[in-house]
Amino acid sequence: MELDLAIRGGTVVTASDTFHCDVGIRGERIVVLGENLRAQREIDASGLLVLPGGIDSHVHIAQPSGPGVVMADDFASATASAAAGGNTTVLPFALQQRGTSLRACVEDYRRKADGECYVDTAFHLIVSDPTPEVLGQELPALLKDGYTSFKVFMTYDDLVLKDRELLDVFEVARRERALVMVHAEGYDAIRYMTERLEREGRTAPYYHAVSRPEIVEREATHRAISHAELVDVPIMIVHVSGREAMEQIRWAQSRGLKVYAETCPQYITLTAEDLQGPDMDMSGAKYVCSPPPRDEESQAAIWEGLRTGVFQTFSSDHCPFRYDSPAGKLHPNGKTSFRWVPNGIPGVETRLPILFSEGVSKGRISLNRFVELTATNHAKIYGLYPRKGSIGIGFDADIVLWDPNRREVIRQEILHHGADYTPWEGFEVTGWPVTTLLRGQIVADGGRIVGAKGAGRILARNVSAYAASIGT
Amino acid sequence: MELDLAIRGGTVVTASDTFHCDVGIRGERIVVLGENLRAQREIDASGLLVLPGGIDSHVHIAQPSGPGVVMADDFASATASAAAGGNTTVLPFALQQRGTSLRACVEDYRRKADGECYVDTAFHLIVSDPTPEVLGQELPALLKDGYTSFKVFMTYDDLVLKDRELLDVFEVARRERALVMVHAEGYDAIRYMTERLEREGRTAPYYHAVSRPEIVEREATHRAISHAELVDVPIMIVHVSGREAMEQIRWAQSRGLKVYAETCPQYITLTAEDLQGPDMDMSGAKYVCSPPPRDEESQAAIWEGLRTGVFQTFSSDHCPFRYDSPAGKLHPNGKTSFRWVPNGIPGVETRLPILFSEGVSKGRISLNRFVELTATNHAKIYGLYPRKGSIGIGFDADIVLWDPNRREVIRQEILHHGADYTPWEGFEVTGWPVTTLLRGQIVADGGRIVGAKGAGRILARNVSAYAASIGT
Amino acid sequence: MELDLAIRGGTVVTASDTFHCDVGIRGERIVVLGENLRAQREIDASGLLVLPGGIDSHVHIAQPSGPGVVMADDFASATASAAAGGNTTVLPFALQQRGTSLRACVEDYRRKADGECYVDTAFHLIVSDPTPEVLGQELPALLKDGYTSFKVFMTYDDLVLKDRELLDVFEVARRERALVMVHAEGYDAIRYMTERLEREGRTAPYYHAVSRPEIVEREATHRAISHAELVDVPIMIVHVSGREAMEQIRWAQSRGLKVYAETCPQYITLTAEDLQGPDMDMSGAKYVCSPPPRDEESQAAIWEGLRTGVFQTFSSDHCPFRYDSPAGKLHPNGKTSFRWVPNGIPGVETRLPILFSEGVSKGRISLNRFVELTATNHAKIYGLYPRKGSIGIGFDADIVLWDPNRREVIRQEILHHGADYTPWEGFEVTGWPVTTLLRGQIVADGGRIVGAKGAGRILARNVSAYAASIGT
Amino acid sequence: MELDLAIRGGTVVTASDTFHCDVGIRGERIVVLGENLRAQREIDASGLLVLPGGIDSHVHIAQPSGPGVVMADDFASATASAAAGGNTTVLPFALQQRGTSLRACVEDYRRKADGECYVDTAFHLIVSDPTPEVLGQELPALLKDGYTSFKVFMTYDDLVLKDRELLDVFEVARRERALVMVHAEGYDAIRYMTERLEREGRTAPYYHAVSRPEIVEREATHRAISHAELVDVPIMIVHVSGREAMEQIRWAQSRGLKVYAETCPQYITLTAEDLQGPDMDMSGAKYVCSPPPRDEESQAAIWEGLRTGVFQTFSSDHCPFRYDSPAGKLHPNGKTSFRWVPNGIPGVETRLPILFSEGVSKGRISLNRFVELTATNHAKIYGLYPRKGSIGIGFDADIVLWDPNRREVIRQEILHHGADYTPWEGFEVTGWPVTTLLRGQIVADGGRIVGAKGAGRILARNVSAYAASIGT
Ligand SMILES: [Zn+2]
Ligand SMILES: [Zn+2]
Ligand SMILES: [Zn+2]
Ligand SMILES: [Zn+2]
Ligand SMILES: [Zn+2]
Ligand SMILES: [Zn+2]
Ligand SMILES: [Zn+2]
Ligand SMILES: [Zn+2]
Repeated sequence: MELDLAIRGGTVVTASDTFHCDVGIRGERIVVLGENLRAQREIDASGLLVLPGGIDSHVHIAQPSGPGVVMADDFASATASAAAGGNTTVLPFALQQRGTSLRACVEDYRRKADGECYVDTAFHLIVSDPTPEVLGQELPALLKDGYTSFKVFMTYDDLVLKDRELLDVFEVARRERALVMVHAEGYDAIRYMTERLEREGRTAPYYHAVSRPEIVEREATHRAISHAELVDVPIMIVHVSGREAMEQIRWAQSRGLKVYAETCPQYITLTAEDLQGPDMDMSGAKYVCSPPPRDEESQAAIWEGLRTGVFQTFSSDHCPFRYDSPAGKLHPNGKTSFRWVPNGIPGVETRLPILFSEGVSKGRISLNRFVELTATNHAKIYGLYPRKGSIGIGFDADIVLWDPNRREVIRQEILHHGADYTPWEGFEVTGWPVTTLLRGQIVADGGRIVGAKGAGRILARNVSAYAASIGT
Repeated sequence: MELDLAIRGGTVVTASDTFHCDVGIRGERIVVLGENLRAQREIDASGLLVLPGGIDSHVHIAQPSGPGVVMADDFASATASAAAGGNTTVLPFALQQRGTSLRACVEDYRRKADGECYVDTAFHLIVSDPTPEVLGQELPALLKDGYTSFKVFMTYDDLVLKDRELLDVFEVARRERALVMVHAEGYDAIRYMTERLEREGRTAPYYHAVSRPEIVEREATHRAISHAELVDVPIMIVHVSGREAMEQIRWAQSRGLKVYAETCPQYITLTAEDLQGPDMDMSGAKYVCSPPPRDEESQAAIWEGLRTGVFQTFSSDHCPFRYDSPAGKLHPNGKTSFRWVPNGIPGVETRLPILFSEGVSKGRISLNRFVELTATNHAKIYGLYPRKGSIGIGFDADIVLWDPNRREVIRQEILHHGADYTPWEGFEVTGWPVTTLLRGQIVADGGRIVGAKGAGRILARNVSAYAASIGT
Repeated sequence: MELDLAIRGGTVVTASDTFHCDVGIRGERIVVLGENLRAQREIDASGLLVLPGGIDSHVHIAQPSGPGVVMADDFASATASAAAGGNTTVLPFALQQRGTSLRACVEDYRRKADGECYVDTAFHLIVSDPTPEVLGQELPALLKDGYTSFKVFMTYDDLVLKDRELLDVFEVARRERALVMVHAEGYDAIRYMTERLEREGRTAPYYHAVSRPEIVEREATHRAISHAELVDVPIMIVHVSGREAMEQIRWAQSRGLKVYAETCPQYITLTAEDLQGPDMDMSGAKYVCSPPPRDEESQAAIWEGLRTGVFQTFSSDHCPFRYDSPAGKLHPNGKTSFRWVPNGIPGVETRLPILFSEGVSKGRISLNRFVELTATNHAKIYGLYPRKGSIGIGFDADIVLWDPNRREVIRQEILHHGADYTPWEGFEVTGWPVTTLLRGQIVADGGRIVGAKGAGRILARNVSAYAASIGT
Repeated sequence: MELDLAIRGGTVVTASDTFHCDVGIRGERIVVLGENLRAQREIDASGLLVLPGGIDSHVHIAQPSGPGVVMADDFASATASAAAGGNTTVLPFALQQRGTSLRACVEDYRRKADGECYVDTAFHLIVSDPTPEVLGQELPALLKDGYTSFKVFMTYDDLVLKDRELLDVFEVARRERALVMVHAEGYDAIRYMTERLEREGRTAPYYHAVSRPEIVEREATHRAISHAELVDVPIMIVHVSGREAMEQIRWAQSRGLKVYAETCPQYITLTAEDLQGPDMDMSGAKYVCSPPPRDEESQAAIWEGLRTGVFQTFSSDHCPFRYDSPAGKLHPNGKTSFRWVPNGIPGVETRLPILFSEGVSKGRISLNRFVELTATNHAKIYGLYPRKGSIGIGFDADIVLWDPNRREVIRQEILHHGADYTPWEGFEVTGWPVTTLLRGQIVADGGRIVGAKGAGRILARNVSAYAASIGT
């Protein structure tokens, strides 16, 4: 058996196992794991971890974000950044704008992505306008075409679904076995808080955090869980930020409900104080995202959830804007009120180093749990398994070689995203991606992008096992 | 690379992954996973699952069980039964009898096991007499020799430790990084209940269950957790039977305490009613074990714990006695009171089929969780990993070929243990072990034992990763 | 000191105390408690309990209930029924209809009540249309006029407030120190369930209960609590029906939130099965109320809440319709779907006997807790204290003489309400009101109304102590 | 009706009600409540609250406390101090010393108390040696004689009961309807911690608190609750110090168990830091009591328990030792280790002002709850009701006139106890007892004791309603 490539001498890590062996690749797939494999091309991985490429199931790319606002990444820069950060698949969103066809939106996003991606890409849908046509025809058809998950929002002017719409959407998801991702923050409560703060003249970016306290997230989480329980459909609560929402999810899980949960780097490393900047100035806008980061007690809670299995996935919620730009964080309206500051932070490139360093290197989670949280569970939950998400025979040769001992300081200048800053400027980590391979080809190496633009494919996905009734 | 054996065409399952491939074995170890492997000897596994051999980390073999009582299995029969049931490693106990040296007890058990075993075997210790000598010298020395876990009892006349003894033992465990297994039922409460029942003339085997209600298990569980929290040492609560104790464990886990838990087949399939027999007669003695089985609500609770990760291991607590024997369940004293009925049931051979059938076939847990609960986590928790517990390069070739579709009725006549009955007589299962390989050699095949007595080794174990401070 | 009336030889009971003494009344008030009091008129209360007259803080009288539907009670019949059942004060609602002035509605209700009442009456408001004018002017003005509490609805087509409206209303309540009563059932979820059931042809009255499961009540309860926490305002969750909602309330209380709760006779004595009637026929309509009665486990939960203090008040939610009438339960539309069956049951006359019999006579709650739940707390919470709600010097002489040993069977023929049935037909009770006195005058005696129509006054109320920040 | 005494113009407060009236007394009892009462003697109470005299159901008087240690109060000084602090009844303990007859102990205490008391006194028993004779004969006989409650200890060398003894004692309590008070701290865990601290040289008084962390109290509380649940007997957990134990009690109560709870002034005002003294010196001994005070978060938890009804009583746990005395806190052994510092602090005189000021004046609890927690519930729970505990017809005229606005600074020089210090030196309070009447006679007035030594009676008590099955 001729191999095209052998990765030799490394330590293979899966979501459950860790062992030393060589990895043999033919074409795009892993075909053999063994000792002393030889191939035409060989990579010396001694001293390195051989991990499944990161899958980031929550990124926003080239999404319209309001008048005059431009997202800092297109598909080329976002996926290059992902690759440099050790990822081989990203799942961005195809956002339906109200009054438009969902199918047309999807086509539009595909067009933007086509030929641009450095890593594999698969779209979630965002349903913002669940008309009978969307629910009855477009959505079922798109699900059959491999768009097997979609996100709904309980807040944002242009996206919020009413409770009845949520229920109707859940019912379609149940029937069609789609996995629904829920952005759980309560629209009315945020509006109420925002107007109150504005009346009081409290408009600095910091008040973004005050306008969306944990109560608001907890209430929406409880509401989403209750609706899902009523309809009897599994849901994924994305970007959980702190103890209050997490307790609701844990309570639901302990009652046997199929409620899954995701958290993100910002909720274990940042706090609301970061939004204050040095002097309650606009620099706090760099940290404006939703839900906002909370406090240290919440970070501890999130770690407990990561350890005990409340959370299944750890994603970036990459949603990049330039800071020093009128089309970004310094949008002129943002100076009048936090409500106009674009919501979101870049993070696709730093997700893996942050969790590795804070989690594995500091002894909070095991190496296997790291792989599970950053790759395997994403593949399983979103219907990419067993093509993606692990190192085993037949899997795509999506691999990142990881140096567990390398110390690095996160700085904007070493990153590849389109944003002009990183919220983690100066953050020190131990553990760093050395080489990223996509289906057997090196995409990123030593901090440089060496893959071809367009080498990343746009994937159709299977129905999620998590959306079915089997135990997981 | 020459292979001694190739298992071809099966579906390999690990605690996280499932994929089709061949497994190549040289000597005693797995050396290659790949497609189209050829070897001198080949096994056709098409249509079968290729699972890591079961590890049963809680079995009792040839243990003294009171005057005139004889355990139904010696090491030969117990390990043959284990092999037939798809297991490749068992962890019995070396029980210290009060007033004796722990080291001497261990040597005694080793002698009994030596040359008798069909599968690999590693001993836990049971500390019943924590003298300064035992705590200061024998225990640390034995831990260094590879007896890295031990069990303590909160009940049973000859075994119970006082709270202070528990605390002292926990302190040694903390210092020496041993994993302590706790039998959590409260001695005084059981005595109180037993005497009350006896005074009332309620002495049939059924009252064994009444004498040890869930309160008694819950209280001891809380007490063990509190002591462990005070000393700051991880513990494993074994054979958890129902919701009450489980809620204590979940509460502890959610507070970040390192409290692990095990459950057993009896707690998902039997109930206290089974102890009633057809007519409150002695036949109920067949189901006398401690803690006793509870009710259906408790079974549902245990399933929730299995799904959500409260439990890390699923063991048999195999503890076999003959039913129709004065040295077994029908011991003459047992007719005067349930308290003299030997405690324990046989189960090492039926553990895997029961969990597979009730769990995987009925859609309650995934195949990967099955492997994790029955093999991988046992190896990780008890210091046998990465030699044992998974299918990967370098692991011992401990493998069971499993037919997921085979329907079978559990009957005494097809089992290999030394007991003269099974509590699951007539129980129908879907999924059955076809062939068991120990380090590359077939031990059991098609229900027959084909391995050599003495082929099973007595293993020393590493320190448990779970007894250390790293996240798991 | 001359007394107009002495009640002699009874046992006085307050929310905390029980002692034997005579009660001396001059004019409308209690002026002396002592031994051997003499007066012009004397009532022999030996063998009887002397209780503060019941206060029913949740009754609906002469409320518009949809096209073609007529409530079975006007103010005369409702208050006569209340008096016969041992009550001396009732708190009905003045319901704002959308598009109308709140003040005008209030005047309208007052007109209907004026000169008609047999017992004292004070109105809560129902805010269904929180326009800026209502919130900014009418509501504050009405609160100052003694309408110090109001109810809001989270369901019902004509009444439901959106979340933002709830928040705005809460903010007014906070500023003006009004107590907000919340009907917590989720509108959208009920609509969703109703339409689903109708599509499936499940339209019998029983499906009313199915359309409003506990999840729906729990979710709305959590939402109301969260909104109240955000605004920092006390709220009263009315008519709590079962464990799910109750657990949310208990959780809120244990976190220090000022969340109060009420339950009703239907939730400790009826179940959803009652809605099935003998044969899933229209007779189930007799039990249609919202939230619907649940099951026996829920009844047990409610009792725990009554014992441990989760609930502060026990009210009837009297909302009477005739059964055998096209303007009542047999409204023609109701035969096409449960959704058109008028919601509500009569209960003002049976509330006290049911709680006394099931609670006090059966040993579930103490006599003092009975008084607290049926009179004292109503007065305290709704600003009638210390004029109403207890037996002490200076209180209105609102008294019911109660025979704790009298056994009675509840039957329609002995009741005084305007409905043509009682949901408790045939229900046996121990304990019965013998004589009711309103401000020193006998209103009901031996089952007959002897008071004067119009003797009942319409009361203004003080600000609730529970709406302020003081501990309670 | 001639009155001997009229208290005029005050505001009477009971556990449920507050109203203005005069209180008329004839002989020892309250015979009339009314307006404008005249009597031979009159007290002007205008501007004052007229409260039931405080009942302190947890005080230690003249109890042996170890070799060379002498309690600072005899019955004369303790009851004088109680009277000055607004109390009219105290419940000290008659402690059985091991190897002695319980009856003889009781007689001994009675002798010491006889003719010495300024306020009424009733003894609890302490059972430290539950021999068959004690359980079978003495205890039942004493219960019949009016010693209807007793305390058991889960710690202290001379007092600790083993679990089995606890269960046996609980069974007697159940049968005889006695109320068992439980000192819940775990003996073995404390011993373990103490020895560990001593080995490390950490022997200052502060380490008393470290040796008894909340875990130890929580574990014992859970254990006591479980045993009580097993036997089905109500229990009272005394002197609960913080959140951990309280959560166990709340959990038990919410499951319908009859578990009552008491807390004390030290747990809402002191913290473990007080034991550090200015410099980790012996002055910390002034605050050594068990359980030790915790931290501010625990204080907040205790307040929540006081508000929401987890706690039924608020007692002092008065247990006075002189500080500057070799027979007290500066016992020579105490300098070698905290374990020899006598456990206990004086507090009978300061209990009411502290709770009034911190609770009522600061708006945390209502006036009625204050009365309930300090008088009424004590009488009800310990079988003194309806003779004691409220202001109503027929009650003993045990009354304290209370100035709600008087500001006072607690200082040793104004107190009447036998100790030479108060832990609350310099603590400012708003609200102070002005005059204390025992059965119609003034005992304390304006800070001076004016009653007669021996005027206090030794009371027999009824069976506790809380020890029976009725709801409370
Ligand atoms: Zn989102
Ligand atoms: Zn997002
Ligand atoms: Zn065991
Ligand atoms: Zn065992
Ligand atoms: Zn309502
Ligand atoms: Zn209503
Ligand atoms: Zn104590
Ligand atoms: Zn004490």
